[in-house]
Amino acid sequence: MNVIAASKQNGFPNLIVQKYGGSSVATSEKICGVARKVKARVETGAKVAVVVSAMGKTTDSMIALARKVSPSSEPPPREMDMLLATGEQVSAALLSMALNDLKVPAISRNAFQLGIVTSGNYSNARIRDINLTLLSRDMERYDVVVITGFQGITPEGDFTTLGRGGSDTSAVAIAAKAGAPCEIYSDVPGIFTCDPHKVPGAHKLEAITYTEMLELASLGAKVLHMRAVELARRYEVNLYCASTFSEERGTSVLKELPEWMETPVVTGVTVARNQVRFVVKNIPGNGDIVSGIFQTLALAGANIDMISMAGDRGLSFLTFTVLDCDEKSVLKAVTDYMNSHNLTGWTLEPGVPVAKVSAVGDGMNTATGVAGRLFSALRSRSISIMGISTSDINISVLVDGTRADEAVEALAEEFALKS
Amino acid sequence: MNVIAASKQNGFPNLIVQKYGGSSVATSEKICGVARKVKARVETGAKVAVVVSAMGKTTDSMIALARKVSPSSEPPPREMDMLLATGEQVSAALLSMALNDLKVPAISRNAFQLGIVTSGNYSNARIRDINLTLLSRDMERYDVVVITGFQGITPEGDFTTLGRGGSDTSAVAIAAKAGAPCEIYSDVPGIFTCDPHKVPGAHKLEAITYTEMLELASLGAKVLHMRAVELARRYEVNLYCASTFSEERGTSVLKELPEWMETPVVTGVTVARNQVRFVVKNIPGNGDIVSGIFQTLALAGANIDMISMAGDRGLSFLTFTVLDCDEKSVLKAVTDYMNSHNLTGWTLEPGVPVAKVSAVGDGMNTATGVAGRLFSALRSRSISIMGISTSDINISVLVDGTRADEAVEALAEEFALKS
Repeated sequence: MNVIAASKQNGFPNLIVQKYGGSSVATSEKICGVARKVKARVETGAKVAVVVSAMGKTTDSMIALARKVSPSSEPPPREMDMLLATGEQVSAALLSMALNDLKVPAISRNAFQLGIVTSGNYSNARIRDINLTLLSRDMERYDVVVITGFQGITPEGDFTTLGRGGSDTSAVAIAAKAGAPCEIYSDVPGIFTCDPHKVPGAHKLEAITYTEMLELASLGAKVLHMRAVELARRYEVNLYCASTFSEERGTSVLKELPEWMETPVVTGVTVARNQVRFVVKNIPGNGDIVSGIFQTLALAGANIDMISMAGDRGLSFLTFTVLDCDEKSVLKAVTDYMNSHNLTGWTLEPGVPVAKVSAVGDGMNTATGVAGRLFSALRSRSISIMGISTSDINISVLVDGTRADEAVEALAEEFALKS
Repeated sequence: MNVIAASKQNGFPNLIVQKYGGSSVATSEKICGVARKVKARVETGAKVAVVVSAMGKTTDSMIALARKVSPSSEPPPREMDMLLATGEQVSAALLSMALNDLKVPAISRNAFQLGIVTSGNYSNARIRDINLTLLSRDMERYDVVVITGFQGITPEGDFTTLGRGGSDTSAVAIAAKAGAPCEIYSDVPGIFTCDPHKVPGAHKLEAITYTEMLELASLGAKVLHMRAVELARRYEVNLYCASTFSEERGTSVLKELPEWMETPVVTGVTVARNQVRFVVKNIPGNGDIVSGIFQTLALAGANIDMISMAGDRGLSFLTFTVLDCDEKSVLKAVTDYMNSHNLTGWTLEPGVPVAKVSAVGDGMNTATGVAGRLFSALRSRSISIMGISTSDINISVLVDGTRADEAVEALAEEFALKS
């Protein structure tokens, strides 16, 4: 496997990067539980770089405190990151203590001590470099290095934080640089074929590709952050997501599925709810007006999706979806635009509540008839398809918003994603 | 004044170091109050280096957490300091935010960022150096630099903490290095001639010398740490202690009182309670036995004070005091020692509860009759003197433990220390 090869090349044989999120280290008891889990890993002969988030809701309560001392202005982002960076230092020190108490040689390191250098944009910094020499030296003396996630320092030595999903990003970056695999532990046991809260019997996936994972972002949202998945894809870091609180097998996120694994046609089904679909009929003129409409919508801050356009005798016929919270601003923006250009004859129907249901799978590349199977599965339940878009590994359809769950259920059944 | 001269020499004209303790920054409201106080100082044209402790009881609760994750062993001191160092970083960041909210240009700095290098003995490290170039650079851009007290880093970049009174020590060290005066704010308004809880009407001192302060340690215990006073004495840092929560004038601690100030004979009266006095009579032989007794007591861990010895016809007569908690171990140790040396004829009377009352004042140097005034003040209240020791600036007497408060009161009256 290329990852292990890379690991050996980079001088980190047996290194595993593990990341434990805030809910995994929320209390002293949970920290002791994580220490036992790490210890078990060390006993298999591994060296472990453990990346931790701040305990539970620490970050939230620090933000609240910051607001209180800064009632009339936003706190300076530099000071905010100085404040927030303490959260991970607390959990890293405590986990290191818990490991030492279990007789596991461990040391904690913050962003200063490990030379995690980032760009200077506070609260949303990008990792520029990690000083592996320091990690390497620690790994000679300790079995575990506990590293503060979510944070870095600027070249000038100011603390930065990495923004949402920051600790996942820290873990993947360290794994990428060291050529090691990366395990992300949280309170969710893995990635499922569909949302298990909506589709009882949804399967947990044994493995999924980076590309599929990015398409199925909503299924993985609570498990790992998409910024970390993108980084893992770029550097081909083997990711593994599982529950902190059980020994149950989790989900691997890889470049491609192992050869011995049968590639499923559809890996998962995801749904985007709370959308409305607009139809603008009889738009006169050439594409200029349509393009003007999109510019207007962008200015109004509406996020447009699932666009389709057709033309007939010089009149265009446009459909698109937006989030339902943007419904009113879209109606107003389009109407204003048309009126300000003295256009007549066009009609804009009120938005229709819809959901976008997507079937995702690397297997679609090579399988035929996937679209056909999808359509008949929906038709057999009398669910109308109000729009469609496809890519190499994705088919998305718009359906009546009230029937989204039924549609997901139908596809899960058709493609054997549930039991 | 030499301090201002030093300050100008070191390139820090107008610099004042201020230190605010844990109770001064215990809540967001108190942090905002400190910010207003610092702002008022900046508005007089000063640049302020503010040293802060952790908020309220933060350090205590982190220690409790550390014990929980390390149930079977003491947490590694290195990890303990990694943990505890976050406390001051939180309060420094919050105070900097509060200052910025009041439009005061401020930045927070931790031990890494200010190069506060210490020895490597975790939990009780000694400051070796402070990088004034960094402070100086900050002072060009900001009016206030908020500095994490109580902490440093080793030359290898591990966090250390300075032990009890650590933030006071940080503040004085910075002031010493920068040649600036140092103000220590707490919830106590200054140094008093006697304990104001015991002696109603005790005066607050306008000024006191380092030496007096060290002799009167118990009077200053809640105001500033003696380690910081020693450091201030060594580098002649002008100290000033006052309340965070009022504008009331506090107490200056200086090398010598300003010339315009009349030097009082006695500056303050302090009392050490919970002592017992032992008398060992008829110790045979030469000094060897007495010296053996002291060695035995040292091994038993007893802290001996107020020793006196007299001899008569080859027999010695020894008295000393110890803390009452050591009473039993002293009785046993002396008896065992005498018996193991087959000595006879000696007697050891049970301990008598006593208190050591000390009158301290640089003025004693030159004033005559102080001892006489002290004795008659006690005698006029029929308080017996059971022992006495003197130094240049100190007369201590042993009195019946139940009459300690009366004795202090008598001296306070005699030397005009109360109203």
